[in-house]
Amino acid sequence: MTNEHDHQANSLILKRLGIDTHQEAVVYMRADCPICRSEGFQAHSRVQVITPHRTIIATLNMIHDSLLSHHEAGLSEAAWKRLSPQEGETAFFAHAPSVTSLSAVRAKLYGHRLSDESLQAIIQDVVGGKYTDIELSSFISACVGDRLDRQEIIGLTKAMIQAGEKIHWEHPLIVDKHSIGGLPGNRTTPIVVAIVTAAGLIMPKTSSRAITSPAGTADTMATLTNINLDLPTLQQVVEKEGGCLAWGGSIHLSPADDILIRIERALDVDSEGQLVASILSKKAAAGSTHVVIDMPVGPTAKVRTLEMAAVLKEHLEQTGKAIGLKVHVMMTDGTQPVGRGIGPALEALDVLSVLKREKDAPQDLREKSLLLAAKIFTIAKVATQKESYEMAREILDEGRAWIKFQAICEAQGGFHFPQKAAFTHDVLATTKGTVLTIDNRKLAKVAKLAGAPESGSAGIVLHSPLKQQVEKGKPLFTIHAETHGELNYALNYVIAQNNIITIVQEAE
Amino acid sequence: MTNEHDHQANSLILKRLGIDTHQEAVVYMRADCPICRSEGFQAHSRVQVITPHRTIIATLNMIHDSLLSHHEAGLSEAAWKRLSPQEGETAFFAHAPSVTSLSAVRAKLYGHRLSDESLQAIIQDVVGGKYTDIELSSFISACVGDRLDRQEIIGLTKAMIQAGEKIHWEHPLIVDKHSIGGLPGNRTTPIVVAIVTAAGLIMPKTSSRAITSPAGTADTMATLTNINLDLPTLQQVVEKEGGCLAWGGSIHLSPADDILIRIERALDVDSEGQLVASILSKKAAAGSTHVVIDMPVGPTAKVRTLEMAAVLKEHLEQTGKAIGLKVHVMMTDGTQPVGRGIGPALEALDVLSVLKREKDAPQDLREKSLLLAAKIFTIAKVATQKESYEMAREILDEGRAWIKFQAICEAQGGFHFPQKAAFTHDVLATTKGTVLTIDNRKLAKVAKLAGAPESGSAGIVLHSPLKQQVEKGKPLFTIHAETHGELNYALNYVIAQNNIITIVQEAE
Repeated sequence: MTNEHDHQANSLILKRLGIDTHQEAVVYMRADCPICRSEGFQAHSRVQVITPHRTIIATLNMIHDSLLSHHEAGLSEAAWKRLSPQEGETAFFAHAPSVTSLSAVRAKLYGHRLSDESLQAIIQDVVGGKYTDIELSSFISACVGDRLDRQEIIGLTKAMIQAGEKIHWEHPLIVDKHSIGGLPGNRTTPIVVAIVTAAGLIMPKTSSRAITSPAGTADTMATLTNINLDLPTLQQVVEKEGGCLAWGGSIHLSPADDILIRIERALDVDSEGQLVASILSKKAAAGSTHVVIDMPVGPTAKVRTLEMAAVLKEHLEQTGKAIGLKVHVMMTDGTQPVGRGIGPALEALDVLSVLKREKDAPQDLREKSLLLAAKIFTIAKVATQKESYEMAREILDEGRAWIKFQAICEAQGGFHFPQKAAFTHDVLATTKGTVLTIDNRKLAKVAKLAGAPESGSAGIVLHSPLKQQVEKGKPLFTIHAETHGELNYALNYVIAQNNIITIVQEAE
Repeated sequence: MTNEHDHQANSLILKRLGIDTHQEAVVYMRADCPICRSEGFQAHSRVQVITPHRTIIATLNMIHDSLLSHHEAGLSEAAWKRLSPQEGETAFFAHAPSVTSLSAVRAKLYGHRLSDESLQAIIQDVVGGKYTDIELSSFISACVGDRLDRQEIIGLTKAMIQAGEKIHWEHPLIVDKHSIGGLPGNRTTPIVVAIVTAAGLIMPKTSSRAITSPAGTADTMATLTNINLDLPTLQQVVEKEGGCLAWGGSIHLSPADDILIRIERALDVDSEGQLVASILSKKAAAGSTHVVIDMPVGPTAKVRTLEMAAVLKEHLEQTGKAIGLKVHVMMTDGTQPVGRGIGPALEALDVLSVLKREKDAPQDLREKSLLLAAKIFTIAKVATQKESYEMAREILDEGRAWIKFQAICEAQGGFHFPQKAAFTHDVLATTKGTVLTIDNRKLAKVAKLAGAPESGSAGIVLHSPLKQQVEKGKPLFTIHAETHGELNYALNYVIAQNNIITIVQEAE
């Protein structure tokens, strides 16, 4: 029914307002603009923004002020990036068509199952930016806890793989590892990659930056080398060295995951199904064939009980099987941090210390890395279960892992040592005794308040693992910060808490 | 741990940005501002905005542009209204404390029941603006369909009553009526109030404006008299005339409802529990003791099947009982509009026509109003079931209802006749035959495109109810609009549809 004249009347000049609304695309229009009136747009209407090159759907915020002229419509950062208009380009506006996959979400809320087709339609629409945050929240809520059965989890995983890019490798055997988060300092990946690739296996590792933790593997590696590799460069590095330690953010594997994870985090809900689909879709998209998953179990880790761990292990391994991925889950100790450093550079120092076989290298980090590397050897069938640990240990102890690690860093752009923080402060034991518990979450928060992961050298060095004897007045941990303000900020939090590290006093 | 110095450093001047984000409070801060950096705020962080007088929680949008100076923080309209700062006032900023009632929402998602205490905590936090849209969506999703049992529905209803104001009346018997929406033109309320109050009962009716429909009772009454009564004025009118026909929006009865309904609508989900709590909490808060509920049942009405209707009727009546409210649900015909007019003024003309006993007054509207008034007489025990219809009919036919209606309008500020629309257009039958079906939703959409309810005189006059014989080329309905553009807009939609009114052709 629209004609050229209507279209002209429906157009406004796009203006980048520089407002970061996080991921939701927002369009800003004057409440008194003729388009809003004639289309009956209201605040929170879903609006199609149409340029000759691209169309996006955005949520409307109404402007009652002079932020925009009568000829302009504003876009949030997310909307601007999605639409990528020219500066000063004109757009047309229309009501967004209804999103049909939402009816499957509603049906799921009412207790029906999600078919493979529905899951594919949902994930495609999610990636296409067609879901509002409110609708994403509803989908997450419908899938919470154990609401997805095995078949739905497999369907979701496949849908998430399909919605993104997939890396193809020439090799028949591509190994990978993944750690289910929640344990500060658990930085085994660089060591495992070095050992495994030194043994001749292919391990193209892409890692994430920290989202809620003080450091992700990508943050740690960024203090040692360049991690921003585009896909061709990444493939070159892997061809040359058999592996890489790159940031996964610039390669769009499982883009649905990034969107869904943000809402899950905002709601602070876990969904077994989403977790399984999230992990495995990224591994499958990365072209992996054999994956070892490190699952720390402990009261302040992500997986808190052995029952949860058992269910999750089964889901991961069986879903892997269904999508042609050999998955092995290792349950590990999640009661305390691994290594001493918490924060990008401080964890990097632990990693280097293990690789360089320094005398005081953290033995727990070394041991855990060896076990994970050995498990990869076992499932990839390059060694028997019996031989594989010895094989990993030899590669590490002979210095071959350290040489390989430096070679990978060179291939990625050069190796450098991490920076040191300008300010440090020791937090002292107020009593003599034995370390009984460590609150991983609070310890992680101290490291974050000190500036990690944005400030690469900020964080914590822990001197008192579980069961350690401590003397009154001796340091339990040291806070590292790049500014005096951040140091104080972390310290204030420590003073306000009294159970980050609990010590049992001994009978005199 | 904060001291005066920190507070000074943490302060910014508040700026009203004039951005209508609908109900969610949003605060805009520069990404490079020292507060964001030191507090670790990110886009979508929940932030406390603190002035000496009030504190609100808002969602952060980051500004990467010159919308704000380094000393300013912006507020959305919803945030500005909630905080009510002085122009140029300074505010402090902190991380929002975690919302503890959310753990009950999560537990419900995982399959646990909501206790009365949890429901009260949730609703209090909802009304206090502590839930983000994402969290509201999660709560709604947890309660969808039949997920709330009777006890939870009662708990939710009580929580919603407690969270708002409550009107107290001197009289022991306060009657009310409510209609479950979805049926265009179903404007019985003004007639029922006139009949019932003419009989000496107390009926302080507050109504809503249309949200998704072409007219609410408040919109219709606004074309006839003043409907913006504050609570003291409303009470005066009721003392004088025994009833009123006011807009409920200026009296804060069940404020939680307004917030939850917006998200339910965005998700397009129904929840029996939410619906029951929504209706009954408003009635209880208004001080009603006896309530008749009109429940239209039909394929394009809100309640689509008799099974749904039966479940809902039982919930409404039993929940009413639990909170001390006598509730009677009348299932009514929801297959076609009531009366002829659809739109504020056009429905007002129908109402006046019935009250003035004009010969061509719409009989369906008259009949339905009489039945509802009679049912109120019955449950209030002012007449037996047998006598009550006759009683209502007499009051209407003797003109006492019309006199009372005018008196109520006078008490509210004066009666006036509604405006007429400047533009009309007849939509003609393209064939001879009998009207078989009417799509209420599409008909409502035509009225809205024509400008209803914002343009009071806009809408539709329906000439062809179900089973009506129509001649080819004779008008099925007439579109009324205040501007030529809106008329065209509605007409374009009519032309694009072909099943708003279906006609079966007769054998020649």
